[in-house]
Amino acid sequence: MNLADLFARARQHDVRALSRLLSIAESPDVSMSELGPMLAGSIASATHVVGVTGPPGSGKSTLTGALISAYRKQGLRVAVLAVDPSSPYTGGAVLGDRIRMIEHSTDDGVFIRSMASRGHLGGLATASLAAIALLSLTGFDILFVETVGVGQSEIEIVEISDTTLVLVSPNSGDGIQAVKAGIFEIADIFVVNKADQPNADATVRELRTAVRLAYAQTPADWRTPVVTSIAVKTDGAAAVVGAIEDHRGWLDRGARVERRRATTATAIRRLTIAEFSRRLRVPDVLVQQVERGELDMWEAADSLAKGSES
Amino acid sequence: MNLADLFARARQHDVRALSRLLSIAESPDVSMSELGPMLAGSIASATHVVGVTGPPGSGKSTLTGALISAYRKQGLRVAVLAVDPSSPYTGGAVLGDRIRMIEHSTDDGVFIRSMASRGHLGGLATASLAAIALLSLTGFDILFVETVGVGQSEIEIVEISDTTLVLVSPNSGDGIQAVKAGIFEIADIFVVNKADQPNADATVRELRTAVRLAYAQTPADWRTPVVTSIAVKTDGAAAVVGAIEDHRGWLDRGARVERRRATTATAIRRLTIAEFSRRLRVPDVLVQQVERGELDMWEAADSLAKGSES
Repeated sequence: MNLADLFARARQHDVRALSRLLSIAESPDVSMSELGPMLAGSIASATHVVGVTGPPGSGKSTLTGALISAYRKQGLRVAVLAVDPSSPYTGGAVLGDRIRMIEHSTDDGVFIRSMASRGHLGGLATASLAAIALLSLTGFDILFVETVGVGQSEIEIVEISDTTLVLVSPNSGDGIQAVKAGIFEIADIFVVNKADQPNADATVRELRTAVRLAYAQTPADWRTPVVTSIAVKTDGAAAVVGAIEDHRGWLDRGARVERRRATTATAIRRLTIAEFSRRLRVPDVLVQQVERGELDMWEAADSLAKGSES
Repeated sequence: MNLADLFARARQHDVRALSRLLSIAESPDVSMSELGPMLAGSIASATHVVGVTGPPGSGKSTLTGALISAYRKQGLRVAVLAVDPSSPYTGGAVLGDRIRMIEHSTDDGVFIRSMASRGHLGGLATASLAAIALLSLTGFDILFVETVGVGQSEIEIVEISDTTLVLVSPNSGDGIQAVKAGIFEIADIFVVNKADQPNADATVRELRTAVRLAYAQTPADWRTPVVTSIAVKTDGAAAVVGAIEDHRGWLDRGARVERRRATTATAIRRLTIAEFSRRLRVPDVLVQQVERGELDMWEAADSLAKGSES
């Protein structure tokens, strides 16, 4: 079956066709010249993309599981893309986390896909963007993009979303840590998960204070709420759903255009860097000049970064 | 004091001048056009660069501390560069780890420097390469480059070394995990640290089997040894020092030229990508074409990656 046929079937909610397309998008040597044009309409899709990030142990998968249940009760079709750029060491943990979502595995209104870094990050950027575009065009109402692990690259992946949830562990100090670490800027909603734990209240207070101070300095149209969840309980994610819907409503009242423009620019940027680095060849003659000290590494890099076709 | 004066003083083992140069190299808006040419000779430096990587909890800092002691006993000058690209969440842990090295802080034959990701990874690549070059040119006999955390970017940093140590926790299964994850290829020496723990023997056996199988498939000139250490004990790192010296001897017998050529090419490549991404501007008109579905993201990226001056 060719790509166009697979794509047509995936749009008819054919799960096997969708899985095959995702595998194609994930393969390291895929050429996007055929698949890319099919995904061109994804920016205008009605699918609401929700990024979920936070440090290990903050309960991302458990919360995502609770959010799936909540949205399924509303009769919506839900997709989850779990991206793990922090390989090589964490391969084992990811599968373990996925298993917690298995209760949804027999529900055909739910589609869950894991994606791990095989080799280089550029490849994962390309593959995850293709996966988000595919899932945005195949009839899902809401798409959760969850990153497993920590680090800059995870944050880069959730940045391509309409609404970004940042989970914080209910330990005193973690809220402040989150603020310091600069993930404050990417959060549309802070979630203090496992809110039944002893330090949760203190963490919520810390984050609310930080939000208040940030808005006193830089007033903004959307004020990041700090909500709590107890993901293991029925309806424990109700406050999170409420906050997601508030943010979606705010986007609907006008901010969505600007937001999608920014995420589109970010996506193009990531893909451009990935493509540049795929093409890049460092000429031997340049390496030898640097070895001999005739040129420093920065001059060499400068000339290559400027240079056109390689 | 200008850069040339600072550099001259740093070469005379002036620690304050060296610290200032490292701060300059680390600053996000440094132009390498002045500092770069001073570092041009670093590829030919006699400083032996040892990369130290491994998952959290494998005892990298403790081992590095033991290695510092061992090399100091030989009267050698030792530098340590600890790089943490896995911010934003791990900021706290790094400082804690550094404190374990404090016993060396009053020894002026030891220089220790931490470097964390502030913002983007490209900046860290540039800064850590400049720091490695600086420390290679200022009279240290051995330089340990330790990365704190997990992930592709950590591995990228230790790849720029003469000898790479990969630490593995003494838990059964972790050896196999390391092999599967593809960090096998970057290890010159495997270290099973905390070798007094119950599963250490099994981990050593797993790794040795993996090495044997790998060499049966692809014979190579250097056969990665699997050594153990008990970093908290006096002389617990003796086997690691022995392995480092064996590898250094092997490099001296001819492999160093090829190795430095490969690490130089890798360094130029990283700097080129960092520089390309620093220069990259995604034109609004392109974003709008993608939004309207006239162009897909991959075509847009393709044209930008190809395009010359931006």
